[in-house]
Amino acid sequence: MKVLVIGANGQIGKHLVTQLQNNNEHTVRAMVRKEEQLGALKQAGIEAVVGDLEGSVDELVKATEGCEAVIFTAGSGAHTGPDKTMLIDLDGAIKSVEAAEKAKVKRFVMVSALHRNKRENWPDKLAHYSVAKHYADRFLQASGLNYTILRPGGLLNEPGTGKIKAADYVVRDTIPREDVAQTAIAALNEEKTYHRAFDLVTGETEIKEALKNI
Amino acid sequence: MKVLVIGANGQIGKHLVTQLQNNNEHTVRAMVRKEEQLGALKQAGIEAVVGDLEGSVDELVKATEGCEAVIFTAGSGAHTGPDKTMLIDLDGAIKSVEAAEKAKVKRFVMVSALHRNKRENWPDKLAHYSVAKHYADRFLQASGLNYTILRPGGLLNEPGTGKIKAADYVVRDTIPREDVAQTAIAALNEEKTYHRAFDLVTGETEIKEALKNI
Repeated sequence: MKVLVIGANGQIGKHLVTQLQNNNEHTVRAMVRKEEQLGALKQAGIEAVVGDLEGSVDELVKATEGCEAVIFTAGSGAHTGPDKTMLIDLDGAIKSVEAAEKAKVKRFVMVSALHRNKRENWPDKLAHYSVAKHYADRFLQASGLNYTILRPGGLLNEPGTGKIKAADYVVRDTIPREDVAQTAIAALNEEKTYHRAFDLVTGETEIKEALKNI
Repeated sequence: MKVLVIGANGQIGKHLVTQLQNNNEHTVRAMVRKEEQLGALKQAGIEAVVGDLEGSVDELVKATEGCEAVIFTAGSGAHTGPDKTMLIDLDGAIKSVEAAEKAKVKRFVMVSALHRNKRENWPDKLAHYSVAKHYADRFLQASGLNYTILRPGGLLNEPGTGKIKAADYVVRDTIPREDVAQTAIAALNEEKTYHRAFDLVTGETEIKEALKNI
């Protein structure tokens, strides 16, 4: 599959781009926010496009067309305020879903966050972030797309272990970003993850095996 | 009908409570956020309950049960940050929709804001507020409820004129809060407004007449 990575310049996004580039089954198109981010990607031989999540859906349709799957891992980040969380993590995510529908891209993998599916389980801090992720996920689930929603625990920068625990609910724990990226890619063709949403932390089972048994 | 007013202590909410109390067709239950807001309402002979939009859906179900319609006009207001906008105007609104569904209350009138239905028409300032109203409205529309969504223009405190312009799109203009309240109440039994959303400003047509011809 040709996979559009939305948020390609983010911390998980960079892992996704590298892993997809080294993958025999897939090719990658990296979507970044700014023109000046294209150069480095193109120099590395990576197909890259500009797409602004605060822009129009039509702009995102253009960035999406010709791909067969989308992995969404963009976020406004901790350095901006809640207003940007609403514009990127919520509105930007839903615009990406609408763009995928318009571009006839059926497969959509969303990188969400642990426990955001049930309000009762939201962590106390950054409640507005939980709201954004919660409704972006619900909107994707209500769309016509073949979705998979990953809800990873606390994100680490250490090297991946290749082993995860994935289930409807798991106790709060951590996971390396490298493993989140690998799980998103492994999910692309794994039918057991179609129309599914699940918590994701480091575990004892190889990623592919864990997804087969979800 | 017995009508639950969510946001009864707000500026439009106060008009709604007074108007419903003076209305022969309807009775009112006022929902307020704090225990200490109950006293004044009860002294005025108004049925009132406490319901926290940042609390659980179950709490809202209790506040809603026994009513036949909900009018939602709560908002975090301009004095709080975008994080509260997400928690009240978005999450609180959608929790109210879920509570109405659980309480088997079919009729739901939402007070939204002008032009929030199309992203292209959102005003530049307070974009996060537009996001909140937009998705609250969309979730209501996707619910099983019999909804009406009013999108009033710039809100004024001057006395109502009793005359409005209501349509899918109207040019930006203003409207007294008193007229927004009256339109919400007039919509309750007007079948032409069922499953409809429309812009609303001061106009030349009597409110009931305008809604009949929408």
